[in-house]
Amino acid sequence: MPAPTVGDIGEREVIRRVRRRLPAAPDWLAVGIGDDAAVARPARNRDEVLTTDALVEGVHFDRAYVPPEAIGAKALAVNLSDLASMGAEPRLALLSLVLPADTTVSDLDSLVGGMLDMAARHGVTLAGGNVSRSPGPLIVDVTAIGCVKPRDILLRRGARPGDGIYVSGAVGAARAGFLSLRGAPGAAPRGEDGLDAARARFLAPEPRVRLGLLLARNRVASACMDSSDGLADAVRGIADAGGVGAIVEADNLPIPGAVRSRFEEEGLDPVAAAVEGGEDYELLFTVPRRRRRALAGVLARAADVPCARIGSVTRERRLVLRRAGGEGPLPGGFAHFG
Amino acid sequence: MPAPTVGDIGEREVIRRVRRRLPAAPDWLAVGIGDDAAVARPARNRDEVLTTDALVEGVHFDRAYVPPEAIGAKALAVNLSDLASMGAEPRLALLSLVLPADTTVSDLDSLVGGMLDMAARHGVTLAGGNVSRSPGPLIVDVTAIGCVKPRDILLRRGARPGDGIYVSGAVGAARAGFLSLRGAPGAAPRGEDGLDAARARFLAPEPRVRLGLLLARNRVASACMDSSDGLADAVRGIADAGGVGAIVEADNLPIPGAVRSRFEEEGLDPVAAAVEGGEDYELLFTVPRRRRRALAGVLARAADVPCARIGSVTRERRLVLRRAGGEGPLPGGFAHFG
Repeated sequence: MPAPTVGDIGEREVIRRVRRRLPAAPDWLAVGIGDDAAVARPARNRDEVLTTDALVEGVHFDRAYVPPEAIGAKALAVNLSDLASMGAEPRLALLSLVLPADTTVSDLDSLVGGMLDMAARHGVTLAGGNVSRSPGPLIVDVTAIGCVKPRDILLRRGARPGDGIYVSGAVGAARAGFLSLRGAPGAAPRGEDGLDAARARFLAPEPRVRLGLLLARNRVASACMDSSDGLADAVRGIADAGGVGAIVEADNLPIPGAVRSRFEEEGLDPVAAAVEGGEDYELLFTVPRRRRRALAGVLARAADVPCARIGSVTRERRLVLRRAGGEGPLPGGFAHFG
Repeated sequence: MPAPTVGDIGEREVIRRVRRRLPAAPDWLAVGIGDDAAVARPARNRDEVLTTDALVEGVHFDRAYVPPEAIGAKALAVNLSDLASMGAEPRLALLSLVLPADTTVSDLDSLVGGMLDMAARHGVTLAGGNVSRSPGPLIVDVTAIGCVKPRDILLRRGARPGDGIYVSGAVGAARAGFLSLRGAPGAAPRGEDGLDAARARFLAPEPRVRLGLLLARNRVASACMDSSDGLADAVRGIADAGGVGAIVEADNLPIPGAVRSRFEEEGLDPVAAAVEGGEDYELLFTVPRRRRRALAGVLARAADVPCARIGSVTRERRLVLRRAGGEGPLPGGFAHFG
């Protein structure tokens, strides 16, 4: 007997299966899934931070090597990463699923389970959503809403010449993980290639929510952005928004050895491949000299997420990559519709 | 020279084109499009009402007969209809576009223009969004957020035996409009078939925002739901949520003559076709006997949207359609994954 699909059980049963998995609603959620819309009481004395981002099969993931749990987890994670980059505390999410009729119920359950695990880890309530049929790719579109004290908001703009530039985690890891999952002739077998963390970063990145909150509450960062489209793109985003330039020191980039090796196997320049590589979902932030001591305090409290100083903000509006061999322009970012 | 496409101009330029069209932001929007997320100050002493709904090419519309302006307008309208059914005042929207690379820039501009016209008519600020490439259908996914005084919220539950059942506008119009647009041999030529309003209702329904607000603020309705999936589905939704039944009087259904004729041309029972037909996006609501005078006041103020009493709530949990020929079960609703 073939596995039952969402086409077999219908839209209402899909919604019922999601509802059944939800934990008890917090008291600020007056109406959850089941009416025409959700009703939530806003947090007091907070601004709301709102973001939406979609994962599209064939563009952002391939079901051949991305399991459904990871699709669900990542669809929420990429939105939480946007909230983190604003210094916001995540609160609720809305889920819009566009499902091919032949999606199995088992895959649906795994996808929703992966998302709800990610939600639980970050205190996010799934407040509502929508299910549509797809005549093509599977699409998971999430809107996430968080809250922040108005004076704590982190923006892209605000970097000033002399500020240090920092990045959390590893650079290029998601791209190396993606290359490893996609497979290539001659690559080392999995489990022996040192890329487990890189594959995990690609499949279901843990958003840097706590780091973003600490940076915001301690007023450490003058600007912040996530590296969803690569480190170079984030450096460019912060520089453009602030009307400044940047020098990135190649030797200071946290590119793990296994990630470098993977890029070299592909015949890529490892530094360029790492700074261009999208989907790391790390935080890229700038810190004024006078806030360096406060930064040390934040980094000590977020010790599970290492942060590296990778360069400096400059007055001159150029983006420079400084390597042992000399200086050159920072390679470009990554974008869809390429 | 072929018309330029979104694949030609790239994701960033798509976002730039949308931003350029936006009117000045209200003062409660601290950060709009252009950062990692939007930042909004919640309305004071209001609950927030949140909904998300997607329009998927090949499922909800066919670009052969739905122009891009209508796709954009309707994608927002279906969400505003959900807010209206809760009695909420719409405030902001987030737009997630999943675009085939061959979408022309001209179609993109028209789609966004149609949405922004609808937004302007209802006081909605486009606060943020996302653009992804689609390897298949065009998808317009919208999240809309409104606000409501906690004591004014309209829910599906709350209907009591003896309450009157009312519906705004016309029943079955969207389905007849859809059939007319899709075309059929032997149908009367457009412009002479009396279906202009029905086609408009299918293409870009005007959500019943003002009616919903008036019902809520005057505490007229005991329950309310929109007829996105058809009148029968909405009657069932309100009956299920309230633990009650309903009798619908076929003779009282506001089915325009041209709509009836269109269904008859298709060989359909016009009453069944009308109550099963989805996408009317009208409000279906129940009114206790003691609030009938207040209802008259509301209807006088919303005179541009006629409302008809179409039946009564019953204690017995059956859904009955009473016709000249006798009683029978109310036909079923309409759902995707059929």
